[in-house]
Amino acid sequence: MQNLKEAPIGVFDSGVGGLTVAREIMRQIPQERIVYFGDTARVPYGSKSTDTLIRYTRQIIRFLKTRGVKAIVVACNTASAVALEAVRDELDIPIIGVVRPGAKVAAEATRNKRIGIIGTETTVNSGMYVKLIQEHLPEAEVIGKACPLFVPLVEEGWTKDPVTEEVARRYLADLQKSDIDTLILGCTHYPLLRHMVGDIMGEQVTLVNPAYETALELRALLEREGIANDGENKNFENPYEFFVSDLAEKFKTFASSILPCDVTSIKKINIEEY
Amino acid sequence: MQNLKEAPIGVFDSGVGGLTVAREIMRQIPQERIVYFGDTARVPYGSKSTDTLIRYTRQIIRFLKTRGVKAIVVACNTASAVALEAVRDELDIPIIGVVRPGAKVAAEATRNKRIGIIGTETTVNSGMYVKLIQEHLPEAEVIGKACPLFVPLVEEGWTKDPVTEEVARRYLADLQKSDIDTLILGCTHYPLLRHMVGDIMGEQVTLVNPAYETALELRALLEREGIANDGENKNFENPYEFFVSDLAEKFKTFASSILPCDVTSIKKINIEEY
Repeated sequence: MQNLKEAPIGVFDSGVGGLTVAREIMRQIPQERIVYFGDTARVPYGSKSTDTLIRYTRQIIRFLKTRGVKAIVVACNTASAVALEAVRDELDIPIIGVVRPGAKVAAEATRNKRIGIIGTETTVNSGMYVKLIQEHLPEAEVIGKACPLFVPLVEEGWTKDPVTEEVARRYLADLQKSDIDTLILGCTHYPLLRHMVGDIMGEQVTLVNPAYETALELRALLEREGIANDGENKNFENPYEFFVSDLAEKFKTFASSILPCDVTSIKKINIEEY
Repeated sequence: MQNLKEAPIGVFDSGVGGLTVAREIMRQIPQERIVYFGDTARVPYGSKSTDTLIRYTRQIIRFLKTRGVKAIVVACNTASAVALEAVRDELDIPIIGVVRPGAKVAAEATRNKRIGIIGTETTVNSGMYVKLIQEHLPEAEVIGKACPLFVPLVEEGWTKDPVTEEVARRYLADLQKSDIDTLILGCTHYPLLRHMVGDIMGEQVTLVNPAYETALELRALLEREGIANDGENKNFENPYEFFVSDLAEKFKTFASSILPCDVTSIKKINIEEY
């Protein structure tokens, strides 16, 4: 059991977005090790089908298990929405996604029971946020809006740009008129646009970032299962390991800019072999 | 040999963009059959590495060969720029890309020997357009500019939108000042923005769409090799077959909107198995 306690958490995403979730885990439970995988060879997931994303998720889980992980975090809203339930029963370790924690905190935050959700096409079309919010709050009205240009705009680095603001105003126009009081940032890239989205929606709308709640839920899960690391990760030479399916320079730049640690080693693997 | 003459042409791209090349082939050599493959499960290619794109190209060629193709057209600037030369010697059938024909026609079109090229990051960074233009015109000056947001903007359908125009003005600003008289649309999505790009660059700049020249070069190649179809493809029940690695509804919509034929059957295959 001591070995299992010291095992790392597997965290994966289609690319760099899930690093915002890894960052929250590093902040909330700094004693845990992390093996991060970014599927940069097949990014993005947001416009791909359920079948394909389930296949990709299975491959990534097989890879993470070779690294001896004790639990897995699906740090991608799209994969959490369409693939997580399909693979959960195939696993002998706990797995959590970002959609369930995000839905829970939104259901708790709303006062008028009107919640907005922005995300990729596949996430919004899946209806998974609606389903999970209504498990907590059956009478909730949930209004979804896909924002396909947000990810490329963030990856271009235009997070404080008038072009992005114009795109955001257009995507958010219907949500502004819909009297929501809570808005879920349902894609791991979107916290990087939170100030712009917040300014457009106004201060009466609470923004929910599922990453924060996911890290808290992970901590509770590890304690409940008796596999939380009770030591300090500083005993490990390399507490955070990063793997990608394509060696994009962008990954290193992005990771170094948002993580509170040095990203010294990023290894490339062929995910199709798993 | 008659069998080979009646065999189809394999055409592939990361997704829908290569359909603009398929369209030119349908127009220029309507008697030829086409097997089209769009790698929609791994799209886009434009920000991925050379190693990964060579691996993907090899898989796709293996798949197309199972369909009995007599020649292959790499209808993707990025794969043409970084993968084509690596796989050419492994093949026993002819293969052509879009970069060489585009470079040739640009070298012929320029009067002041100053040529611009816009494309994905990987295409522009590869330097392949520069190399091939200078084979025809050693003293040519070639100025490249990556335009990563053009593909997502076209896929969002915003081809005549003020947001896209603002993005285009920004991407093209340096090229406008650079005194080029010829600009290569070095990505198969960009012909859908040709009017906007043309208006911004002005009428003194000739726009080159490599798709047109590629279809002509394919016709010449088939005749030179003695494998051109001398019949009429109307003898075949289904002259144009479409395969994708992910069944995105978008593919069918896009294909139907730009092709001069009905796209009735699109089959999904698992490209990782090839």
